[in-house]
Amino acid sequence: NPALLEPQGDHFYAHEPPRSPQLLVQCQKPFNGETPHALLAGAFVTPADIHFVRNHMPLPRGLSAAEHSITIEGPGVGATTLTLHDIRTKFKAHTFCSVLQCAGNRRSEMAAYKLVEGRAPWNSGGMGNARWTGALLRDVLASLWPQELDLVNPLNNRAKHVCFIGSDQHKETGIYYEGSIPLAKVLDPLGDVLLAYEMNGQELLPDHGYPVRAIVPGYVGARQVKWLSRIVLSENESEAPWQKKDYKLLPQGVTDHEGAEGPQGWTSMPAVEVMPVQSAILTPEAGSVFAASTTEAIKVRGYAWSGAGVPIARVDVSADGATWTVARFTASEVRPSGRQWAWTLWEADVPVPEESRKKAGPLRIMCKAMDAASNTQPEKVATVWNFRGLNCNSWGNTIVRLE
Amino acid sequence: NPALLEPQGDHFYAHEPPRSPQLLVQCQKPFNGETPHALLAGAFVTPADIHFVRNHMPLPRGLSAAEHSITIEGPGVGATTLTLHDIRTKFKAHTFCSVLQCAGNRRSEMAAYKLVEGRAPWNSGGMGNARWTGALLRDVLASLWPQELDLVNPLNNRAKHVCFIGSDQHKETGIYYEGSIPLAKVLDPLGDVLLAYEMNGQELLPDHGYPVRAIVPGYVGARQVKWLSRIVLSENESEAPWQKKDYKLLPQGVTDHEGAEGPQGWTSMPAVEVMPVQSAILTPEAGSVFAASTTEAIKVRGYAWSGAGVPIARVDVSADGATWTVARFTASEVRPSGRQWAWTLWEADVPVPEESRKKAGPLRIMCKAMDAASNTQPEKVATVWNFRGLNCNSWGNTIVRLE
Ligand SMILES: [Mo]
Ligand SMILES: [Mo]
Repeated sequence: NPALLEPQGDHFYAHEPPRSPQLLVQCQKPFNGETPHALLAGAFVTPADIHFVRNHMPLPRGLSAAEHSITIEGPGVGATTLTLHDIRTKFKAHTFCSVLQCAGNRRSEMAAYKLVEGRAPWNSGGMGNARWTGALLRDVLASLWPQELDLVNPLNNRAKHVCFIGSDQHKETGIYYEGSIPLAKVLDPLGDVLLAYEMNGQELLPDHGYPVRAIVPGYVGARQVKWLSRIVLSENESEAPWQKKDYKLLPQGVTDHEGAEGPQGWTSMPAVEVMPVQSAILTPEAGSVFAASTTEAIKVRGYAWSGAGVPIARVDVSADGATWTVARFTASEVRPSGRQWAWTLWEADVPVPEESRKKAGPLRIMCKAMDAASNTQPEKVATVWNFRGLNCNSWGNTIVRLE
Repeated sequence: NPALLEPQGDHFYAHEPPRSPQLLVQCQKPFNGETPHALLAGAFVTPADIHFVRNHMPLPRGLSAAEHSITIEGPGVGATTLTLHDIRTKFKAHTFCSVLQCAGNRRSEMAAYKLVEGRAPWNSGGMGNARWTGALLRDVLASLWPQELDLVNPLNNRAKHVCFIGSDQHKETGIYYEGSIPLAKVLDPLGDVLLAYEMNGQELLPDHGYPVRAIVPGYVGARQVKWLSRIVLSENESEAPWQKKDYKLLPQGVTDHEGAEGPQGWTSMPAVEVMPVQSAILTPEAGSVFAASTTEAIKVRGYAWSGAGVPIARVDVSADGATWTVARFTASEVRPSGRQWAWTLWEADVPVPEESRKKAGPLRIMCKAMDAASNTQPEKVATVWNFRGLNCNSWGNTIVRLE
């Protein structure tokens, strides 16, 4: 059961931190909350207090920046412990914007099409673009094991994966949260994997992994482990359920837990790592009302992003599905390498079709992004629906009303 | 005019080589020919003589492996000339399968939807999977300029791009064929950019770039320059028309040359480099006939590939667009790095819908691939149509007949 680990007794949640009342709560225990669309559209850098939160367990207690350390181990390169103070002071700090996205973002759209297993019915606010500061994990490994690791060619290392283990514990089983990424991503000089200790120029908030978390640009949020306590270099990917089960896009014929455990289930699919190209409409909100007689065009705003780190080449917006307006990009940020871990905010003035203006009623506005690798979003949620409700990247949309 | 350079006098084509009569000719001058679908499906490694050919000019004459050399230059690192003999003997040879694809592959489907500018109406055979042998360009640069170039972090170099110049010349203007790729791709230890002098264990055929060509895994064929004569490290991408114009996916509102030269035209879009996720059905061929009364399922074969180098996670096949059969992968090849430059061949036994079996008529069979970054193919060609008819990666399909 992929959700096996989630439900826990209420008493484990007696010490959750205060949270912004602006967060739209999907689930209290563990805490899942998303950013309202209009607030997301309002800032290129998402403020920390309203940035979406996806916890898997109760918030870990007793962590302190002054006393925290991370153990880094194996294989064939021993184990060592670094204090967060070391990480902050001995390594160059890097700062850049990088999108975090819950794999369940826009799950509500998948759930509306067909029942999904994931519980949190996220809209488009399970995604944020913060500015992270930290040490490159590449620099840390280079300093620890300059001889023992081949830092240039990852193939020459026995380790192929890097497992991140958090301090957040499933109290009933004792399991700590864990996920892994390829060592090649860490060693890539343009990979930008951070041990991040600041978000938007401030210490991390408890919900975002205080005092230190992994930032893995372009990857699903689930691998960007918060409250980081251990890093394990490994020949294999993590054996944790979040790696081997939950975060997988099952074939479309799998519609229940029995199917998920069968031959076309978890074992047949790779773990979600790099995220696909996507865009969503943030404003106008669904249900917004416009005067049919006077509204020739509607200003539409949204985000676009591709986990591949290639720039968004174009966002097209339409109110009829046939004629497409090319959106203006209003904000983004490109790394010196050309990789684009930040989102691209965009806006477009979309003409309201003459036919629609003649009568009152709903008007569906759609957006679709293409990245620089020519990857595009699928039109219909039906064609990417999956049992866990993950990686919904069909055309973004909002339904407004003409009156 | 993006096609400005193509038409040339017949007399320039007096010395074209003999070619396999099995190639389906799209254009004689310059020569463009594709592989019949059934032959493509029949071999994991596409034989050289039937591998698609997309030439931009007359075949260059007088090239010889014994006398050929490549000049490599700047910026800030001088210029040097390497003989092909040096390239063959002084550097480790690497051999692996890598897909070549014409950006115009499946253009016929785009053209059927709406007029496109590209002349060659490719079906799904403008793509092949050959086994290439050559020296890594990374190794060559490391040997030439161990001090002058930062081989680990491309950001530390003035050069950001690598231009490849062929020996094929547009006789009327004197321009040689040219394209560029990011230096980061060349320096990536897992990037696998080759100076290739063998195809499927043999010297290159004239049409495939004899005596040496660039192989740039995951990139559009247009950058994998044949008959390679010069390599230029540059601060900017190539200024050639094939980089700045032809190989771009223009916004969907651009439907003529005037639009292409306007503000939403060439200058608004990036050059095609990394290719998107895709799949196509190779057999049964369109028009194949099956007995409605006795055909419960149809065996379907095809290819799938993603230029990102991530594995194909799944291919789904359907004869009704609603229920999807997961295809079996019959052949692929993964690099030790995990990158997958080879295609994945697949097959599936697709149930014929009961409704279709009750009456004679056409039956459309569809396929859609998802790669390990969760990128998928768009359903309809209309949503990715573009003026040049490039990168058609909508759902693969074939229409057979039930009788
Ligand atoms: Mo997530
Ligand atoms: Mo091409």
